[in-house]
Amino acid sequence: MRTKVAIIGAGPAGLLLGQLLHTFGVDNIILERQTPDYVLGRIRAGLLEEGTVSLLESVGAASRLHQEGLIHHGLELAFGGARHRIDLHGSTGKTVTIYGQTEVTLDLMNARKAAGLTSIYSAADVKPLDFDTDHPRVSYVKDGVTHEIACDFIAGCDGFHGISRASVPASAITSYERVYPFGWLGILSETPPVSPELIYNNHARGFALCTMRSTHRSRYYVQCPLDDHVDQWSDERFWDELKRRLDQKAADEIVTGPSIEKSIAPLRSFVAEPMRFGRMFLAGDASHIVPPTGAKGLNLAASDVHYLSQALREYYDEKSSAGIDGYSAKALARVWKAVRFSWWMTSMLHKFPDEGEFAARIQIAELDYLVSSKAASTSLSENYVGLPF
Amino acid sequence: MRTKVAIIGAGPAGLLLGQLLHTFGVDNIILERQTPDYVLGRIRAGLLEEGTVSLLESVGAASRLHQEGLIHHGLELAFGGARHRIDLHGSTGKTVTIYGQTEVTLDLMNARKAAGLTSIYSAADVKPLDFDTDHPRVSYVKDGVTHEIACDFIAGCDGFHGISRASVPASAITSYERVYPFGWLGILSETPPVSPELIYNNHARGFALCTMRSTHRSRYYVQCPLDDHVDQWSDERFWDELKRRLDQKAADEIVTGPSIEKSIAPLRSFVAEPMRFGRMFLAGDASHIVPPTGAKGLNLAASDVHYLSQALREYYDEKSSAGIDGYSAKALARVWKAVRFSWWMTSMLHKFPDEGEFAARIQIAELDYLVSSKAASTSLSENYVGLPF
Repeated sequence: MRTKVAIIGAGPAGLLLGQLLHTFGVDNIILERQTPDYVLGRIRAGLLEEGTVSLLESVGAASRLHQEGLIHHGLELAFGGARHRIDLHGSTGKTVTIYGQTEVTLDLMNARKAAGLTSIYSAADVKPLDFDTDHPRVSYVKDGVTHEIACDFIAGCDGFHGISRASVPASAITSYERVYPFGWLGILSETPPVSPELIYNNHARGFALCTMRSTHRSRYYVQCPLDDHVDQWSDERFWDELKRRLDQKAADEIVTGPSIEKSIAPLRSFVAEPMRFGRMFLAGDASHIVPPTGAKGLNLAASDVHYLSQALREYYDEKSSAGIDGYSAKALARVWKAVRFSWWMTSMLHKFPDEGEFAARIQIAELDYLVSSKAASTSLSENYVGLPF
Repeated sequence: MRTKVAIIGAGPAGLLLGQLLHTFGVDNIILERQTPDYVLGRIRAGLLEEGTVSLLESVGAASRLHQEGLIHHGLELAFGGARHRIDLHGSTGKTVTIYGQTEVTLDLMNARKAAGLTSIYSAADVKPLDFDTDHPRVSYVKDGVTHEIACDFIAGCDGFHGISRASVPASAITSYERVYPFGWLGILSETPPVSPELIYNNHARGFALCTMRSTHRSRYYVQCPLDDHVDQWSDERFWDELKRRLDQKAADEIVTGPSIEKSIAPLRSFVAEPMRFGRMFLAGDASHIVPPTGAKGLNLAASDVHYLSQALREYYDEKSSAGIDGYSAKALARVWKAVRFSWWMTSMLHKFPDEGEFAARIQIAELDYLVSSKAASTSLSENYVGLPF
């Protein structure tokens, strides 16, 4: 088999890259270790920047999003028992769209199917090979048989634990990491959201987030110790803890119900540099991880594949390597801004068990300042809705 | 002796408070442990917010300041080998004035002398007494004789190590503190400043600041280990280290010369709450300390004594206790915003020996964002020129 771009990973990054390349006439094959159902079963983020929505529109995968997605013009910060609204649209002219990552993935899968493009699921032992030469290949095992795809380029869209970054000699990578001393315990429930917009809660007992997937499906999170296990958290305990961290109005009004998903995720900031190794490019979580605070993960993957698809379009259409040569620096400049923003939101909103009372008071001083300053709330807003590509 | 307000400490906070009260017809006596020359010999900050300048104007102590002070419309942030200007005036309509704290103190001393107000220098063993009653007193020893001043109120303007806060039972105070793992080594030299505006340098070897006292007197700082001693720092070593931390242009253009003062100061954030204990009020460093990054210390002392003088004016003119009852909360709200700003500037610009490469890259990402975003640079600016009283 031969293709121009072999894409490893059929998450939203790989699928969106595949569709973008397809619109530019660049043929590609996607290899995925898991089954489609497994990929769709992963519950992830659910907040899209306008830039991400535009990319989905450009590949014709945004019609359901426009029907079902919820447009948010603001968010709320809660601390000291009161809520304060940040007017995202008022200060930036932009909005964000609530639409689950799972739905994005499904829409992209359907678009790919409709375009008749090749995706190979349940591909075992995927290996990016010879990407330091002009003739890279990707091998994989399917139904016990080893196959090989010859290609011009490899795109590693296979996440933090994927084979793509792991195939690069450690000496060629510089990585930066912060592991936060807590996790997020999240539940999904078929209940109406407590409030039409997201509420980010800074509380002495720890962070809590009220978010949603739709008008009838809520997503709530509470900060928890890293070594907690979901078995320790009955639904009842979760709702009790959540209510204690909300303002009185939210605690009174919240509608509780059985969880339909419950999980604990650790929080990490991670960046591996560069994002290009010869004829292999990394994009999305394969190259960088952000904590979920501020919802930048999926949106960063989208901007990465935007830059990468433009670079590859330029390579094929204009016979110019300038785009692919500049990809890593261009993508990383935006990545670091989002990494900073996610780190800052995380630092300001969570209880840090090893930090003293000074740090807790600084958080409140920062939140107080933020909600009282047009400049500071605009700064938060412009990052939250997404810095320009 | 009897007075309405006994002020402990003849630094700029105590002197400015004395003059403000005087303009409101509230008589006061200042007690100071040191001699006038000793007080004038302390080299401190040199950057005044417009609000501070207005207060000095209102007590008739700003004429020399207006002649000799340098008006700055911006500042520069240097990182990654390049300088980026922050247009303070462009984004806020305000400026800052470079004028040494020593000069402010001298002008206030002269104003006090001209007004014929009582200041008792070299007052030993000063003790604020009975401030939990309606009849507070201050005792002190002068030339071997113990004296006492009966008063309505005591104002503790005697700095971090002063007796005022130390006289309050520890159980009545909540304090918040962060001690930074480095100090500032500063020199004063009779050389023209390397640049007309301040340059804040983030460098892998540590922070450096280029500032000034006048067009012919420069003040430079380099971050140094906390346990360094000035004896280890010859002028030559200082200039060498400074140049290594500057951008090429600044390193080439800097005029060096013998130091006329050289000292190392530790960096600390500290807030004691509340700022009122019965009939004693704390103001300035007696209640809170900020690291020098961002030059908020003197300006915070000025806003404290502004609030306090207004509260006391209200008490005497309008027979209302509302002002003095609200003083602590009002002053602390502004204090915490400045403490946050100073902590943030310090965190963004210094090398933290115990933090890894992630933190260093976050600093650069933050600086990159700051100089590229109108909202973020306006946020820095509005804090730097001083939030409104």
